[in-house]
Amino acid sequence: MSYSVAVSGASGYAGGELLRLLAEHPDVEIRTVTAHSNAGQPLIQHQPHLRSLAHLTLQDTTPEILSGHDVVFLALPHGQSGQYTDALGDTRLVIDCGADHRLTDGADWDSFYGGHFHEPWAYGVPELPVAGAKQREQLVGATRIAAPGCNASTVSLSLAPGVAAGVIDPSDIVSVLAVGPSGAGKSLKPHLLGAELFGSANPYAVGGSHRHIPEIRQALRAAGATGDIRISFTPVLVPMARGILATSTARISDGVTDAQIRDAWESAYGDETFVQLLPEGQVPRTADVLGANTALIGLTVDRAAGRVVVVTAVDNLAKGTAGAAIQSMNIALGLPESRALTVNGVAP
Amino acid sequence: MSYSVAVSGASGYAGGELLRLLAEHPDVEIRTVTAHSNAGQPLIQHQPHLRSLAHLTLQDTTPEILSGHDVVFLALPHGQSGQYTDALGDTRLVIDCGADHRLTDGADWDSFYGGHFHEPWAYGVPELPVAGAKQREQLVGATRIAAPGCNASTVSLSLAPGVAAGVIDPSDIVSVLAVGPSGAGKSLKPHLLGAELFGSANPYAVGGSHRHIPEIRQALRAAGATGDIRISFTPVLVPMARGILATSTARISDGVTDAQIRDAWESAYGDETFVQLLPEGQVPRTADVLGANTALIGLTVDRAAGRVVVVTAVDNLAKGTAGAAIQSMNIALGLPESRALTVNGVAP
Amino acid sequence: MSYSVAVSGASGYAGGELLRLLAEHPDVEIRTVTAHSNAGQPLIQHQPHLRSLAHLTLQDTTPEILSGHDVVFLALPHGQSGQYTDALGDTRLVIDCGADHRLTDGADWDSFYGGHFHEPWAYGVPELPVAGAKQREQLVGATRIAAPGCNASTVSLSLAPGVAAGVIDPSDIVSVLAVGPSGAGKSLKPHLLGAELFGSANPYAVGGSHRHIPEIRQALRAAGATGDIRISFTPVLVPMARGILATSTARISDGVTDAQIRDAWESAYGDETFVQLLPEGQVPRTADVLGANTALIGLTVDRAAGRVVVVTAVDNLAKGTAGAAIQSMNIALGLPESRALTVNGVAP
Amino acid sequence: MSYSVAVSGASGYAGGELLRLLAEHPDVEIRTVTAHSNAGQPLIQHQPHLRSLAHLTLQDTTPEILSGHDVVFLALPHGQSGQYTDALGDTRLVIDCGADHRLTDGADWDSFYGGHFHEPWAYGVPELPVAGAKQREQLVGATRIAAPGCNASTVSLSLAPGVAAGVIDPSDIVSVLAVGPSGAGKSLKPHLLGAELFGSANPYAVGGSHRHIPEIRQALRAAGATGDIRISFTPVLVPMARGILATSTARISDGVTDAQIRDAWESAYGDETFVQLLPEGQVPRTADVLGANTALIGLTVDRAAGRVVVVTAVDNLAKGTAGAAIQSMNIALGLPESRALTVNGVAP
Repeated sequence: MSYSVAVSGASGYAGGELLRLLAEHPDVEIRTVTAHSNAGQPLIQHQPHLRSLAHLTLQDTTPEILSGHDVVFLALPHGQSGQYTDALGDTRLVIDCGADHRLTDGADWDSFYGGHFHEPWAYGVPELPVAGAKQREQLVGATRIAAPGCNASTVSLSLAPGVAAGVIDPSDIVSVLAVGPSGAGKSLKPHLLGAELFGSANPYAVGGSHRHIPEIRQALRAAGATGDIRISFTPVLVPMARGILATSTARISDGVTDAQIRDAWESAYGDETFVQLLPEGQVPRTADVLGANTALIGLTVDRAAGRVVVVTAVDNLAKGTAGAAIQSMNIALGLPESRALTVNGVAP
Repeated sequence: MSYSVAVSGASGYAGGELLRLLAEHPDVEIRTVTAHSNAGQPLIQHQPHLRSLAHLTLQDTTPEILSGHDVVFLALPHGQSGQYTDALGDTRLVIDCGADHRLTDGADWDSFYGGHFHEPWAYGVPELPVAGAKQREQLVGATRIAAPGCNASTVSLSLAPGVAAGVIDPSDIVSVLAVGPSGAGKSLKPHLLGAELFGSANPYAVGGSHRHIPEIRQALRAAGATGDIRISFTPVLVPMARGILATSTARISDGVTDAQIRDAWESAYGDETFVQLLPEGQVPRTADVLGANTALIGLTVDRAAGRVVVVTAVDNLAKGTAGAAIQSMNIALGLPESRALTVNGVAP
Repeated sequence: MSYSVAVSGASGYAGGELLRLLAEHPDVEIRTVTAHSNAGQPLIQHQPHLRSLAHLTLQDTTPEILSGHDVVFLALPHGQSGQYTDALGDTRLVIDCGADHRLTDGADWDSFYGGHFHEPWAYGVPELPVAGAKQREQLVGATRIAAPGCNASTVSLSLAPGVAAGVIDPSDIVSVLAVGPSGAGKSLKPHLLGAELFGSANPYAVGGSHRHIPEIRQALRAAGATGDIRISFTPVLVPMARGILATSTARISDGVTDAQIRDAWESAYGDETFVQLLPEGQVPRTADVLGANTALIGLTVDRAAGRVVVVTAVDNLAKGTAGAAIQSMNIALGLPESRALTVNGVAP
Repeated sequence: MSYSVAVSGASGYAGGELLRLLAEHPDVEIRTVTAHSNAGQPLIQHQPHLRSLAHLTLQDTTPEILSGHDVVFLALPHGQSGQYTDALGDTRLVIDCGADHRLTDGADWDSFYGGHFHEPWAYGVPELPVAGAKQREQLVGATRIAAPGCNASTVSLSLAPGVAAGVIDPSDIVSVLAVGPSGAGKSLKPHLLGAELFGSANPYAVGGSHRHIPEIRQALRAAGATGDIRISFTPVLVPMARGILATSTARISDGVTDAQIRDAWESAYGDETFVQLLPEGQVPRTADVLGANTALIGLTVDRAAGRVVVVTAVDNLAKGTAGAAIQSMNIALGLPESRALTVNGVAP
């Protein structure tokens, strides 16, 4: 059968990537695409790379237009999804790519986002270790799914196996991310201009203010962390459209061997298709996951520093957002999990 | 008066930057440029941006050709400078941009470089706090100077004030650097090809193997660190020709206030021209120091993570190498320290 | 049924792109991958983005190893394919991505390449207008196919409709191309280093020396050009891994109307999937065809200059090389022409 | 003596480059910097690379604030300079970096800009051949100067010698330019976002609509062109912050020898410092002129195509705008022409 699908925020970057992947999905029919200020215009005007969808016109993002589909993707700015979710009560599956339904703790929401707090939905990172199982189980048959923040899921996937196995100390984590600006969306802000970004590395949200921090803490707690979780998190914009290269380090727990450390990640991801631990001595590059639903993880034990170093490459729009959403959809609808998703990147 | 100058390694990136800066220096005459396999060719063929030096021809890099100048710059691969230094005994000032004369500890040399260990020379980072003073003092009248490693000096400048003031814990340091590939020199290696680097973030030397680690430890010890110095150090190649954006974090010492932290850096660099602490809430970008001799430092205290976050932007070829060398030369020769050096970057 | 496939030159860029596309092709089995100096190593070491092919090992490129497959792709440096083609006499389909079998005129071969001249094979640009038909017809059932040069096919597709319809003058053509360096292969040459290419536009082969010029002339003659074909052709390396943005202009023939001009391209490509003429006033970007088998063409009539301006975007590795090869394979084998090929690019 | 200077539009890219160069100028004092919506803010907030000017505050752009200086630079959007010029009647030297005073022909202004037509000022490209002399002569002692359009001056410098010498046909010119987006200013437009520009070549103003076309025609006419001047002009945004690489070709006049062609450029620029003809067989790269006031010209004769190919590299903000303005200022004020300007680029 074919599921009818609507994508809101279809003129943006996350919406565009959802459509790129859905266009190749044999079990869905992209029936409706919506936008806000661009409603009424051809989709192709805003997504000129989506040639196979040139027949679609952007409609208004209203509850009426979004309702009546089997699956609705909300790719809207944070804080805007909530208003549609009530009206979509009959929709079989709603997947929110915004932050509105990610956090379980209202206090975290208040501190990092503010405004009305919405109930948490099933978190769309299937491979994440949670309490002796995988997050995948919570997605089977789910009707409401919160796609992850791209930086948050990258760091969570990087460290959760070590936290779950107790081989690293969650109270001493440092993550520094080289990220492409597409994660910030198609926003007209001076610091996102090409001339500002070419040839430059530009940090932002330094010192603990980035909104993905509580999401990481939540994932690590779900993976089994007890006590304080303390993360120093610094994203740095670098000159590439897409990609996250997260370097995450954590203090090694006392008395743990190198083999035990490696085993923690191997046993967590050894059977996974889309989260791959690289062989010892190898590190990933973001180019290798461009357009792919793959997270590549390089793991090193630095005994001199007393820390595990986990370097993870992800395409922020694919595995980081739209790929995760579609993988979660596949699971929720009982389709093969990897349908319409590829492990192979576009390189060079 | 005018000092006669020779630059070896003149066809490489460090050599090119030395020449670019020296070409504007009113007190020097660039008399000799040397190379290895490119000897006999016009300099302009290898440095087509150095239009004012189009009259120079690359000579062989031999002790005979290098001797007889007031100042000799050695911009050679690591391990190759030592052979020239004996023959340059009469030279008033020799500045080595390689690693051969940086390390004071032979065991560090053996672990990270290997081969013959050379005596340490005065370390060319004038602004670095050392034992209640500045490294500058050791450069006054110096005749032999070791220019710093670009990553090493960036991280050392980032953290030395906090170490010197005792407000951060040198046994818990994490540095992750976004770096341009010019720091690796004009080497014909597959991973340095443009097609491999465009649109990608590529880590290397992950897990404690980078050769600049002992140099950082040495600088922090000189700044007053006692006990173990433990650094997790990860460089990531990003798509820009030049630049280092170092994100360094360290655990805050017990009982230290935010004001004490900020004061450590302010008192260290408040009077410096080329190392500037940005006002609270500001972070630097590498574009802002392109071609400049400036290190810009953004300092944030992240109490939730219990860490100080220091983000520092440097041009690896300028302040990181050639600028540091010429600044050190100015000091050694008694010239105004900032001669031929600018604080202003070329942006956008 | 499934066709067994061998890909030579599998550690290079063209070979990698062939494999990326073939990995998603339901009718082929990638049985053999070969290389030269890298033989014996895992494919994934050289193509870390091809995660689904991690089980393959590079073998030697010998006639023995290549023979015995249904389809053999030769992605070798120019001049090296010829030695294998004799030994592959029994192979159902051989597709050469090198230049060895592209040119029909031995004098052109001698002038631009030199060495042994090989017989021309069916030229792998299906959409190209040839003598009242399409090049596609010559590919149906073909057993030997010469995949095109990426720049050559881009310019040929840009101008052939106008030449075929007689609305432009083939003796007054100027093409300037912004190209990514992956077209030059994984060659260790100084001018292809990242540090040389970031932030710079670097022309090469200026003034009529580029080897794709005779290939363009040949295609335009096949499209119906009579008399002199004169092309000023200048490629410029720009800072992107992939992509060709060809700006081609030609003098408008006397007495031709704007409508006649537009109609020439519309009638040539109106029914094509992978070569698309954009609506009036629109121009293409290379980002929109990244990883896609699409050529996007923007056509403008500049009456003040008396010239047609055709701007065409192509992914040099996809539609320019590997995509064209696989599209041609599909046609030759009687498979659906677009199998394993997408019209949608990966953007942003 | 020291000239007092005001720079309007100081928060933009052209204004920033003016200030970067003026900051090193020994004969000027930057007294006033003005902006529009950013008035009242520290300059350093908008130009964080201009560390030596951190003490300046942006004032309103009003005639009152701009008046009373020896030299005023207007770096305002096109059409906005005119309102200030009347009020600056007493100012010794006004240099407009906008288009308002460039065109001599009101009809051109109406066609390409529109709005009130202002009288033409002395055109600020000193090296341009004009009627047997150089444009420089018109700048000596000038009190009102129109700095050139960056693309226009690049193409004009490329072709004027050939036009002046009669060796090329001005009725058959094609120019295609690879350009960085800083030429478009700090405008918040979607197509100037980094995510849209990374990894892509994006043409614009295709087909004769670019506003620099009449300026080129005017310069070529001043150089001696008679009859129709027909230019096909296509700019292509490529992923670099700065730089213009203009490939300009023109039909060779009948009966002209290669030596005559080369001699035309050599005699035009042989004595110039900032416009340099490269030796035969060499082509320029934009990296080599980054931050420099240099135009590098590579000249090739393509007899097979019947065209001269001129490839010229310029930094659009330096030699293309601010460098030209300051060079013109130096001439107008009787200062050494190259003061505060360098021929050396910042590379790699």
